[in-house]
Amino acid sequence: MNYDQIMQLALERGFYFPSCEIYADAQAGFWEYGPSGVSLKNKFVELWRREFVRRDRMMEIDGSQIMSEAVFVASGHLSSFADPIIGCQKCKSIFRADKLITEITSIVVPESADLTEFDKVILEKNIVCPKCKGTFEKAHKFNMMFKVGIGPESEPAYLRPETCQSIFVDFPRLFKTMRGKLPIGIAQIGKSFRNEISPRQSLLRLREFYQAEIEVFCNPNKLDNLEKFSEVENTEIRIMVEDDIKTMTCKQALDAGILPNKLVAYYLGLLIEFYQKTGIDVTKSRFRKLGDKEKAFYASVAFDFEVETTTGWLELVACNYRSDYDLTSHANKSKEKFEVLDDEIKVLPHVFELSMGIDRSLYTILEHSFRDDKENDRVVLSLKPYLAPIHVGILSLVKKDGLAEKAEEVFFKIRTKYDAFLDHSGAIGRRYRRLDEVGAPLAVTVDHQTLQDDTITVRIRDSMSQERIKISDLDAYIVKAITYP
Amino acid sequence: MNYDQIMQLALERGFYFPSCEIYADAQAGFWEYGPSGVSLKNKFVELWRREFVRRDRMMEIDGSQIMSEAVFVASGHLSSFADPIIGCQKCKSIFRADKLITEITSIVVPESADLTEFDKVILEKNIVCPKCKGTFEKAHKFNMMFKVGIGPESEPAYLRPETCQSIFVDFPRLFKTMRGKLPIGIAQIGKSFRNEISPRQSLLRLREFYQAEIEVFCNPNKLDNLEKFSEVENTEIRIMVEDDIKTMTCKQALDAGILPNKLVAYYLGLLIEFYQKTGIDVTKSRFRKLGDKEKAFYASVAFDFEVETTTGWLELVACNYRSDYDLTSHANKSKEKFEVLDDEIKVLPHVFELSMGIDRSLYTILEHSFRDDKENDRVVLSLKPYLAPIHVGILSLVKKDGLAEKAEEVFFKIRTKYDAFLDHSGAIGRRYRRLDEVGAPLAVTVDHQTLQDDTITVRIRDSMSQERIKISDLDAYIVKAITYP
Repeated sequence: MNYDQIMQLALERGFYFPSCEIYADAQAGFWEYGPSGVSLKNKFVELWRREFVRRDRMMEIDGSQIMSEAVFVASGHLSSFADPIIGCQKCKSIFRADKLITEITSIVVPESADLTEFDKVILEKNIVCPKCKGTFEKAHKFNMMFKVGIGPESEPAYLRPETCQSIFVDFPRLFKTMRGKLPIGIAQIGKSFRNEISPRQSLLRLREFYQAEIEVFCNPNKLDNLEKFSEVENTEIRIMVEDDIKTMTCKQALDAGILPNKLVAYYLGLLIEFYQKTGIDVTKSRFRKLGDKEKAFYASVAFDFEVETTTGWLELVACNYRSDYDLTSHANKSKEKFEVLDDEIKVLPHVFELSMGIDRSLYTILEHSFRDDKENDRVVLSLKPYLAPIHVGILSLVKKDGLAEKAEEVFFKIRTKYDAFLDHSGAIGRRYRRLDEVGAPLAVTVDHQTLQDDTITVRIRDSMSQERIKISDLDAYIVKAITYP
Repeated sequence: MNYDQIMQLALERGFYFPSCEIYADAQAGFWEYGPSGVSLKNKFVELWRREFVRRDRMMEIDGSQIMSEAVFVASGHLSSFADPIIGCQKCKSIFRADKLITEITSIVVPESADLTEFDKVILEKNIVCPKCKGTFEKAHKFNMMFKVGIGPESEPAYLRPETCQSIFVDFPRLFKTMRGKLPIGIAQIGKSFRNEISPRQSLLRLREFYQAEIEVFCNPNKLDNLEKFSEVENTEIRIMVEDDIKTMTCKQALDAGILPNKLVAYYLGLLIEFYQKTGIDVTKSRFRKLGDKEKAFYASVAFDFEVETTTGWLELVACNYRSDYDLTSHANKSKEKFEVLDDEIKVLPHVFELSMGIDRSLYTILEHSFRDDKENDRVVLSLKPYLAPIHVGILSLVKKDGLAEKAEEVFFKIRTKYDAFLDHSGAIGRRYRRLDEVGAPLAVTVDHQTLQDDTITVRIRDSMSQERIKISDLDAYIVKAITYP
């Protein structure tokens, strides 16, 4: 399977599609989740809550997307969250300097490089506008935050470029009122916004996107003092060591000095256990330590969690050790106190973060679940049953003879409890195929025998096998099929 | 109880608090949900999904918050979604014209009135700036949409002022790919944004807020052809008839001509059944038909669902019959076809909407659940157990003697499945009180007897009664306690 097949499925089966598509002024980088996509996303988020927030006793917040200017002065985004861009003197087209140089010359100039480095390569390699052959103006920085004006006075504020800033700003209140104790994770799911120059590939590079971020506040002197590490010490991760991917347990990676401390190792372990449960093939994953030029400006150590897809290695999670960068910056700018007591000693916490891209994760789940089952002339999404947009289809074999009404009766019994889809129309085989394509693990058929003895057939998505059960056993049957491991 | 008590509880127990509060440039009208608020909100949303989306077989989507300019040209928001404002010539303060006039003179000029009407009253009543006594400039319109610039070219786009616009714009694709059949509800939960002049009262008037909107697409010739109406025909609603609130069934209101048709009556019935399950006291509710000057510009018939709180009657849901206003506008502007087939006949659907404010609903749930139980020296949030931020507290009677470890064992068994809160520190009575204040229906205590016979005590929030059960029965006990009705 490849990106185009997933795209087609997404469009045809209501997973996602372009925003404002009926209008010519629709902007790139904005996508909508359709009914199947919303249902998959909700279940992904619920799994994330189970495996991080509940399991690790985190606090979850939901903050404003519009935040005041001072926040981004302190965070450094107002000065540093910018892409290098170049504009054509002739046709005025604008390009990202680093991307254009790499596309044309294969030379890699990191996006964080000094602006003069771009100008130098453009001059040396004689790079001209790919659209009109015009020459380029000097490279400059384009800030990727969206600015908004508040109130009739239009006071400056910004759509947050990452969800974590509310977590930092809210930390003093949360730690105090919620009686926090280090180390503690504070989590948030929500939209972030980046004014990308070149959004592309649907969910893979968006201007408006969903993040699930976890910021773990910890005592920097106790990073190896973490009892719960034993829960994941034998969990296997795949990690780049020099140019190879090695499979090892969290404990082995820690002992070999590949991971810096127990706290980082613990959360990378949780992360891989989570992704295993999403159905993503983690034998195609790797943690990759970033070099100094690749890291975000706030990170002192960073690992990207990447997964192999048909679009290449895709970064799903940035795992950044942000040290005290954020809390110090906000403390200085706001004059608020960010130190807390840890065993009676005052400490300014350090922060380790797991910054997850939800949209990219969903794309990867779709790609890794997609099976082109040619033998049976069908496409199947072999989603984990607890992530399936539809748990069960309820089908009448034919519409007449009272079968439609009987199917509705069955549907009514379970309609609020499960995601059930009632379908009467079309050949039964085609209806099964459609359910396979949205990954519904179960399909119930109401036939003439049902009218006699109140039994129904249940068809299993992956095996296509069928069994006959009593209607009264259906509820328990579904519960068992969709329960978390 | 009153607004201030709820506010205090919200701040102290992690329900909600101001955004960016550590900074002086924090803007009014932006609030954050803390851990208790997020959990309550998530459960409210899940109930909404059960009672509307699943029960009524709706489609749910999740669209972009930033939408292109053409959308709001067509919707009328660019020209009509504006508040009348007046600025002081001397101190430059800005006020909402209608509000200021009413505050000072008690004269009501509707916000949709012609601008000259405000100028006339200001002149006649000699209204001056309340801050500096300066005279006012002429009234003008202030558009309440937040504008953003996309890409380096800064092409104009807007943060959506209501979630429903994506539903309208996406309708042609959704109806076709999802094989829709009229009438069909399309639902969306998400943030909307309005640049209010005077945000106030925390969750009650926000600039960034959550809506749960349902747009029901229907054949205008079949508004009384709705079999499922029988599901709610005996459901009682309270509705304003002239100046009185009358209690009657949906069927009675329909027969008396107070509600215009079965479709509207059906959805108002669903709405009241939903709110009953939230724990809001629906004997303090009313549907109120809006007059022509009160209605939104797109509505041909409108009922507000209002609930009595200590802040007055609070509008929780706007129920608007939008007719073909939106689809016609988008069809004209985009040239896309919005007609669909209904029983082989081409029809341009009409739209009836339930536009719910989530934040206000949550406030009302808190206020209606709040009990100042002076007799027992406690505050209790008598939330419905399935809405409680914490399902169960797990407490060790004392920290020593291995009780903390035993409590952790109990916690570990249920931690991913329920919202459980593990708490070792402080007097047991104080820990019960804190759980009462966040509405946790159950508190489990691990004591010395637990070490002997693996039993625990369960304390019930509302009655404060306790019973001793086996640890192995706890899971089933919680399931039973938090199950939906």
